[in-house]
Amino acid sequence: MVSSCTKYELRCNECGKSYGNVPLSACSECLAPLEVQYDLESVRGRFTRESIAAGPANIWRYKELLPIPEGFQPDLPVGFTPLVRAKNLGKRIGADNLYVKNDAVCFPTLSFKDRVVSVALANAQAFGFTTVGCSSTGNLANSVAAQAARLGLRACILVPSDLEAAKILNTQVYGARLVRIDGNYDHVNRLCTQIADEYNWGFVNVNLRPYYAEGSKTVGYEIAEQLGWRLPDNVVVPMAGGSLIRKIRKAFRELIALGLVEHKNVRFFGAQATGCSPISHAVKEGWDYIEPQRPNTIARSLAIGNPADGPAAAKMIRETGGWAEDVSDVEIVSGIQELAETEGIFTETAGGVTTAVTARLYSHGRISRDETTVVCITGNGLKTTDALEGRFEVERAVKPKLAAFDEYIREVDGSLVGAAQELVLAGGVQ
Amino acid sequence: MVSSCTKYELRCNECGKSYGNVPLSACSECLAPLEVQYDLESVRGRFTRESIAAGPANIWRYKELLPIPEGFQPDLPVGFTPLVRAKNLGKRIGADNLYVKNDAVCFPTLSFKDRVVSVALANAQAFGFTTVGCSSTGNLANSVAAQAARLGLRACILVPSDLEAAKILNTQVYGARLVRIDGNYDHVNRLCTQIADEYNWGFVNVNLRPYYAEGSKTVGYEIAEQLGWRLPDNVVVPMAGGSLIRKIRKAFRELIALGLVEHKNVRFFGAQATGCSPISHAVKEGWDYIEPQRPNTIARSLAIGNPADGPAAAKMIRETGGWAEDVSDVEIVSGIQELAETEGIFTETAGGVTTAVTARLYSHGRISRDETTVVCITGNGLKTTDALEGRFEVERAVKPKLAAFDEYIREVDGSLVGAAQELVLAGGVQ
Repeated sequence: MVSSCTKYELRCNECGKSYGNVPLSACSECLAPLEVQYDLESVRGRFTRESIAAGPANIWRYKELLPIPEGFQPDLPVGFTPLVRAKNLGKRIGADNLYVKNDAVCFPTLSFKDRVVSVALANAQAFGFTTVGCSSTGNLANSVAAQAARLGLRACILVPSDLEAAKILNTQVYGARLVRIDGNYDHVNRLCTQIADEYNWGFVNVNLRPYYAEGSKTVGYEIAEQLGWRLPDNVVVPMAGGSLIRKIRKAFRELIALGLVEHKNVRFFGAQATGCSPISHAVKEGWDYIEPQRPNTIARSLAIGNPADGPAAAKMIRETGGWAEDVSDVEIVSGIQELAETEGIFTETAGGVTTAVTARLYSHGRISRDETTVVCITGNGLKTTDALEGRFEVERAVKPKLAAFDEYIREVDGSLVGAAQELVLAGGVQ
Repeated sequence: MVSSCTKYELRCNECGKSYGNVPLSACSECLAPLEVQYDLESVRGRFTRESIAAGPANIWRYKELLPIPEGFQPDLPVGFTPLVRAKNLGKRIGADNLYVKNDAVCFPTLSFKDRVVSVALANAQAFGFTTVGCSSTGNLANSVAAQAARLGLRACILVPSDLEAAKILNTQVYGARLVRIDGNYDHVNRLCTQIADEYNWGFVNVNLRPYYAEGSKTVGYEIAEQLGWRLPDNVVVPMAGGSLIRKIRKAFRELIALGLVEHKNVRFFGAQATGCSPISHAVKEGWDYIEPQRPNTIARSLAIGNPADGPAAAKMIRETGGWAEDVSDVEIVSGIQELAETEGIFTETAGGVTTAVTARLYSHGRISRDETTVVCITGNGLKTTDALEGRFEVERAVKPKLAAFDEYIREVDGSLVGAAQELVLAGGVQ
């Protein structure tokens, strides 16, 4: 598999200054964020439905629109996760055309971060970094640790000290150096900016951020392709830094511009936890700025009190005619259970947020029941089992005897003891 | 998507008696296991490389050779997991052509059991069962609970009472009734046979076992297809009941018979934990029978002391010129770490078994370094984090100040504090 031949470079979002390709995330002139811009015309004809279908069943089928350095051979099969029709959840919340984009099973580390990390590390190698790192609320740490190990890069990963045990283990097991910081994510992130400068390490979400962020577009490409090359009416996206929701929209706009899908104004809905809802608040208030908050929520992967892409995300949401909602910790846990019980998908707290927010958007009439809506589930439930602690009774053990089982079942769940079920043996099954 | 039109039925492996299609797993005449047999000639021409490539990126691309009842519309995108080239692990253990088949990220519940359950439940519905269940060491419980929820079936799941906390939670969260049995897996399984009869429930690995087992063939189909329609020289497979390893071979034989791959005698290597190694022992001793053991190992998903397919698996392994090995609990944990550190894949204890056994097979010269070997990783590490408890130091939290970080890093990992790294900015990255 050869790397993309697409021309791309970093450019300032505000003043338009060009930077070529360097490990830099902010404009030296006006301090605005830098973004990867592509020569779309050089892509036309090379990024088609057919060329994509001929590609592998992972994100690299979209490599023409990813910042892949020349000579880089992507061989890790990241992404291209299931898009499932959510009929049962839809019945419960009054949604007839509901889909779940399920990054809870993303390869290799069960969150959408695998996408952004694979793109960032491709560039880290090209820039000559031998040590990479990140500031993380958990999923990013897992992904950087795993992918760096496979690429033979050293990894030094900084996290808030109260990170869930599973996420800490799921980072250390790959041999990465994990550093717990006595502070919240915003403290960690600030420190990483300083470390990146002093140590010359490639921090995927600091000095490699513009490249890293592009990986999120693949969620958008996949949604469009898996819906049969059409765009949904709505997308519901959890917001931490505010980058993912913007990149999904960027992906849709690129597909429209290149003629792979018909034009449609997709409405974007942001989901946050009430205990850390700076962007949701800005959307509801109609602000163009973010009022930072001190995070206080079990949804720790969304616990970014001062989100880098916050103002831009709020603005974009309103532009598309979307909205944002935030939900309590109690609703988050209910959301996790609801998705599990209806669709058999076990998501982490961020997914509980997104599910609960989706339900609210429908019940408040912000989305009509017949609209096609994709709910972005970004991480796996096994990463935040703490949130469900004590929620389920672990009952007494039963002796391995039929009589003991009979007695137990009558005691705990009489409804399971029905009249003998009639078996439909339709003259042999076929 | 329409269901398979392939004719199939249950037949006794020993006396050949036919049963049509019924929820039955043993022959009433000679008590041998029943197996699904296909009219392969009716499949020829409909199961081709092209027809498969045109199918979806999941196990249903192989539906022509799966027992799918007429009228069943598979819509859950199970399987088609990554097959990754394991260069780093290979370097460490002296294997030049090593691959990992990674079911640790299988959809929906992160183990290969998702494959067998989806096929079993398709048949459960056709037989009219409204409650399904299983006896399980964990992964099967998760999968039945999740998939039953999505299909609207009740689920009653029985497990040994000492099952890992994550596996218990990852079953209850879907709304399934989980019953802890005061005994080991073999006790649980025996009890389930009695319950299946009395309650008329569809136990996927008891009365639906022949259909369930066929789902494992998809591991073999995928390996062959992902290697470019060729068979490997060797496959290393963990063994609990002994079914998976046999079904992978069945899949390879079907592909050869139907002309999708060239004939090759693939060698099969079974992997067990020394603390529960009845099949490995039988292979090493050259026995045609199993001497049951009382399991005592952290690899609880392989803790089946009296494996149903044990004798047949041992016989098959020797027929192919393969071998079996078993490893200690210490080696299992090292195996988990080794796979994580080299390939960025975090597997559960069963995967640690398989990785450690693979290393031993190469170091003992049973597999030569240039041979193509696929290592089957069957479940995710987040399910057995208990096994790694205490293995990694959770160090003190560091103040969010650069000076504090500097001091900390010098103290714990001086090698990370190198001379400023030279960045290779190759005249812009492209």
